[in-house]
Amino acid sequence: MNILTILAHPDPGSFNHAIAQAAVEQLKINGHNILFHDLYQEKFVPNLPASEIPKNAFVDPAIKKHCEELVQADGIIIVHPNWWGQPPAILKGWVDRVIRPGIAYEFKDGEGVPIGLLKAKTAIVFNTSNTCKERENNIFLDPLETIWNNCIFYLCGVKNFYRKMFRIIVASSDLQRKLWLDKVKKTVNKYYPELNNSELPFD
Amino acid sequence: MNILTILAHPDPGSFNHAIAQAAVEQLKINGHNILFHDLYQEKFVPNLPASEIPKNAFVDPAIKKHCEELVQADGIIIVHPNWWGQPPAILKGWVDRVIRPGIAYEFKDGEGVPIGLLKAKTAIVFNTSNTCKERENNIFLDPLETIWNNCIFYLCGVKNFYRKMFRIIVASSDLQRKLWLDKVKKTVNKYYPELNNSELPFD
Repeated sequence: MNILTILAHPDPGSFNHAIAQAAVEQLKINGHNILFHDLYQEKFVPNLPASEIPKNAFVDPAIKKHCEELVQADGIIIVHPNWWGQPPAILKGWVDRVIRPGIAYEFKDGEGVPIGLLKAKTAIVFNTSNTCKERENNIFLDPLETIWNNCIFYLCGVKNFYRKMFRIIVASSDLQRKLWLDKVKKTVNKYYPELNNSELPFD
Repeated sequence: MNILTILAHPDPGSFNHAIAQAAVEQLKINGHNILFHDLYQEKFVPNLPASEIPKNAFVDPAIKKHCEELVQADGIIIVHPNWWGQPPAILKGWVDRVIRPGIAYEFKDGEGVPIGLLKAKTAIVFNTSNTCKERENNIFLDPLETIWNNCIFYLCGVKNFYRKMFRIIVASSDLQRKLWLDKVKKTVNKYYPELNNSELPFD
């Protein structure tokens, strides 16, 4: 399976990088084809220009390649820190520019009802946070859940969604981080298992 | 009063630009000092670098100026389209880079409880959307409300929040847009009234 993995954190020494590395290692072990992007390392340009808004617009070749990989993906993994209940701007720009009409979704003529076009059946989002669960859920209302699940993946036809928030990063021990990385690998193994043993957890 | 107005839309002919223009016109009539930024026109760079994450980091001089204006602001107006239940990446980058620790908020030592530092008492967010109200509220769960109100302005100590979503933009008539721009002016007039008649609607 083609598994698209997108990482968005500016510090190469971040725990986000460790999560992405653990995910990719497990994907390799399981024999998948990995489409991997470290958006900061690639200097991804996040600002959607007006010229790229129309459905059939000419898009930057780098964006076109991202779109082709999204279309090819059988599964998606997103890794990013929780910044203001949202992804970092660089990843928001990947959403704005790559998840295009005609590529990931389209609208029924005249009705404005979105139809998902992606063939990926499952998306996993790994987040890191320094906000405690109670404040995130009760005061901030955890917008990342509805952003990724309802607004993005559901709209694009990706029906199976799993998200895990690792917290509190700043106060975590080496042992805790090791256990979290084990959790990452187990999660990847569950949703994108070995190809010769590919009884998927959904469907 | 210093009113900071931030606009994020790539098309200078957009209705977002018309909204921002109407807001600025009313602020001028009411005698306020306007701090205005059209982020696309200014080519704002949204990607927060790792070096800018620490509280006392050296920040880019352009970002420092943005921070100074945010500190000076007695009121804030944000204008942007609803893209995936979130602001465009360029505006998310303004949030990531300008709403800094020590500038807009800080944490109680050892507790992780945020304390708002902004002196602005009121923030207005004007949004545009092509999604109907029922789908936005019932399927997408309207994350923009909690993003701006709970996650950002409440955390930074801006207690009075008003948000208006104009919809459906693509299907709107010239008359409808004119009425919406009147609504923008009335809203600005209500929350940031004439200086010599400055009985604020809150407090």
